[in-house]
Amino acid sequence: MQKTKLGDQIKAIVGQDYFFDSYEDRLCYSYDAAIEEAMPEWVAMPGSVEEIARLMTLANTEGFPVYPRGAGTGLSGGSVPLKGGLVMVLTRLNRIREINQEDLYAIVETGVITSALHEQVEALGLLYPPDPASMKVTTMGGNVAENAGGLRGLKYGVTKDYVLALQVVTPAGQVVRVGSKCVKSVSGYDLTHLYVGSEGTLGIITEITVKLVPAPEHKESMMAIFDDMNMAAKTVADIIKSGVIPATLEFMDNTSINAIEDFKKIGLPRDAQAILLLETDGVKAAAQHEAEKIIAVCKANQARDVKSAATEQEKLQIWEARRTCFSALARVRPNTILEDATVPRSKIPEMVRGVTDIANKYGIQIGNFGHAGDGNLHPTILTDLRNTEEKQRVQKAIDEIFALALSLGGTLTGEHGIGSAKAKYLENEFGPEGLAVMRAIKTALDPNNILNPGKIFVADTAIA
Amino acid sequence: MQKTKLGDQIKAIVGQDYFFDSYEDRLCYSYDAAIEEAMPEWVAMPGSVEEIARLMTLANTEGFPVYPRGAGTGLSGGSVPLKGGLVMVLTRLNRIREINQEDLYAIVETGVITSALHEQVEALGLLYPPDPASMKVTTMGGNVAENAGGLRGLKYGVTKDYVLALQVVTPAGQVVRVGSKCVKSVSGYDLTHLYVGSEGTLGIITEITVKLVPAPEHKESMMAIFDDMNMAAKTVADIIKSGVIPATLEFMDNTSINAIEDFKKIGLPRDAQAILLLETDGVKAAAQHEAEKIIAVCKANQARDVKSAATEQEKLQIWEARRTCFSALARVRPNTILEDATVPRSKIPEMVRGVTDIANKYGIQIGNFGHAGDGNLHPTILTDLRNTEEKQRVQKAIDEIFALALSLGGTLTGEHGIGSAKAKYLENEFGPEGLAVMRAIKTALDPNNILNPGKIFVADTAIA
Repeated sequence: MQKTKLGDQIKAIVGQDYFFDSYEDRLCYSYDAAIEEAMPEWVAMPGSVEEIARLMTLANTEGFPVYPRGAGTGLSGGSVPLKGGLVMVLTRLNRIREINQEDLYAIVETGVITSALHEQVEALGLLYPPDPASMKVTTMGGNVAENAGGLRGLKYGVTKDYVLALQVVTPAGQVVRVGSKCVKSVSGYDLTHLYVGSEGTLGIITEITVKLVPAPEHKESMMAIFDDMNMAAKTVADIIKSGVIPATLEFMDNTSINAIEDFKKIGLPRDAQAILLLETDGVKAAAQHEAEKIIAVCKANQARDVKSAATEQEKLQIWEARRTCFSALARVRPNTILEDATVPRSKIPEMVRGVTDIANKYGIQIGNFGHAGDGNLHPTILTDLRNTEEKQRVQKAIDEIFALALSLGGTLTGEHGIGSAKAKYLENEFGPEGLAVMRAIKTALDPNNILNPGKIFVADTAIA
Repeated sequence: MQKTKLGDQIKAIVGQDYFFDSYEDRLCYSYDAAIEEAMPEWVAMPGSVEEIARLMTLANTEGFPVYPRGAGTGLSGGSVPLKGGLVMVLTRLNRIREINQEDLYAIVETGVITSALHEQVEALGLLYPPDPASMKVTTMGGNVAENAGGLRGLKYGVTKDYVLALQVVTPAGQVVRVGSKCVKSVSGYDLTHLYVGSEGTLGIITEITVKLVPAPEHKESMMAIFDDMNMAAKTVADIIKSGVIPATLEFMDNTSINAIEDFKKIGLPRDAQAILLLETDGVKAAAQHEAEKIIAVCKANQARDVKSAATEQEKLQIWEARRTCFSALARVRPNTILEDATVPRSKIPEMVRGVTDIANKYGIQIGNFGHAGDGNLHPTILTDLRNTEEKQRVQKAIDEIFALALSLGGTLTGEHGIGSAKAKYLENEFGPEGLAVMRAIKTALDPNNILNPGKIFVADTAIA
């Protein structure tokens, strides 16, 4: 079918107000928070599961690619329409359908903003723990598709640990329900966790049932300041070894600290080589007890100072510093490449040293911050990609960072996904055998390769 | 190829000492802890991953079915060789390869007994939380294949929540590594959780990396006695609603209580309509605080008495009662059918009433006990299957129990798996669309249907 005719059919499904094909409109949906860009042929904003199913049936029959998209905050190119086709924007499905206080679950449509769910459940004394840095903008569907992490991941786990059930539209336009509202179910294959983190390549996630937990009654926040980055990194593993799993255990290096101070003047010590930001939570006595243990471990590891937040204001300040970090680093140079190679936490000192060596070797600037407790740092490359010579050095540095992470028993991505950016490294992590199993699943569930082609796997079969 | 020739080839791979084809030997591997039985043609006990890969290559080429098996404690017929072929016993792969105290993981071979891992990690002040009732006998591989639950599931989750990575042999004999030692990884599809709970139908699990957690420093155990079963069931939901997630929240009805007293004389109140067994754990002050809250909720719900275990001895007594329950019920009649239909926990009162009504309607005896906090009860049918008339009533009762669970928003199985016993109900839970996705995955990963055929799906294509 001709392109204009296909466009007309898409428009007929979603209605004129929710169909876009002008250059300007398409440009708005040609990128996400990663580097790569590509223009779609059409953009559609379906308003119901039925419309989504009809769009998928059309795409599957006519063979055009579909790129599902939430808020476009992805950091691995997950929603970029690499092969043109249709960008399907899911933000209109934005209702919180149910918050069940007895059975501790919530049912949300895919386009619900993550922090909107946070607010509603917290007002009821409950908690939906996953808290990606972008939570005020991201959609729940995007979080599920990418299996988003966040600051509370260390104690509470990540998105996948909270998804109980999904409604999914298959590439052929079938509406499928997987998982269960029950906290325990082993009924058939765990399709729920296959769709979580599948980056929009296996189905369109339209509705999500998530587990909730009681909100902790008390929190303790701390900042530990180190003159020696290695000691800060070692402290991370020592805290866990002491038997304490803090809710949050974040790391920032000197580059990050100074970027934040340049941006916001929070009062961080510019001369510190590293700081750790920590939070314990739970029953008050337990949170305090764990905080004391943490402070002792920090001091035993030569922390110059450990500040406990005495007031709500001081608490907010600590976490503002952390949440500002990426924006602050992004101001330093024209381009910011945020990676999330992850290692077992005991390897954090080696990883931090290795990344510093790589930065020096290629003469580029790399800030290091992130979820140290999870072994999930964010080496952040500050660069100018218009400079092709520098760009080449950056690319080599990135290659080496991933190779380093894998050599330390790590993984390519802790929470951002493979997308298009890391597809070429995937075989290095799982070998040809592991990759073959993943490809077999992709082929079985999306035989015409219409869903988000070009992601996770390299050398996708081109489609019309 | 002829059967004897195939047998010789299998023997050549594992060696004469680990190959069995006598009637008596085959009989030993014709059943598990469920009802169904079937004779294999051969039994082999491979001693290495390489031997397993060679066996799979042979089976895939020659087209005979392979039934992987751990300790054979499965409750849904998961390891029964329904279509003959080879039972592959994995108990020789029983080494604990690594316990990492810094990064909090352990690597075990598939045949390691679950409680052997418990003992070793607990000696180091760590905890591997999944504790299925059969933990002194079951293998880790079996636990993973069935996604086993246990008493601590409410607070700590089930097996799937602890599996970080797997080594798997595919039906074609490829050795694949999936997942990551890192606590966070979103690299490619989550194959780990696809294999967990796949009941031996997608691959042979040969090595498992599990997450460990620090052992709690303190525990509080309690027994709450109720004269009214409905109030006991309501208490379950009210405890969670109060913001406390106990480590364990178990339920036993009058039938179960009396079966235990007949068996062991622990001193349970024979006239009680139901008892709840509870445990809180963690930092001492927190565990005590939560125990106090629980006692208050029990009393507000007309508990006749709430006993707190003051000594280690009293604690053990409480949990001995619970762990004895199934054995005690199994003594009452010649056959015991243990189901695990699960509902959202607020539906427990309705479920318990409904199961009682079904028992009365068909004139059969059903004991009710289990993981009430998870909504995961074990309606246990006490029967004599030699009585064909009674057997028919039992079958009708089972059909109605599953229909009831699904009608309450529940799931067919909380922790025992579908196996052969529940395959016919699976479509009722997921519809033809959901089942089609599961079948597509099975076909993609095991195109010749040689791995555990006859399980999860009904009407499997017969194989030679």
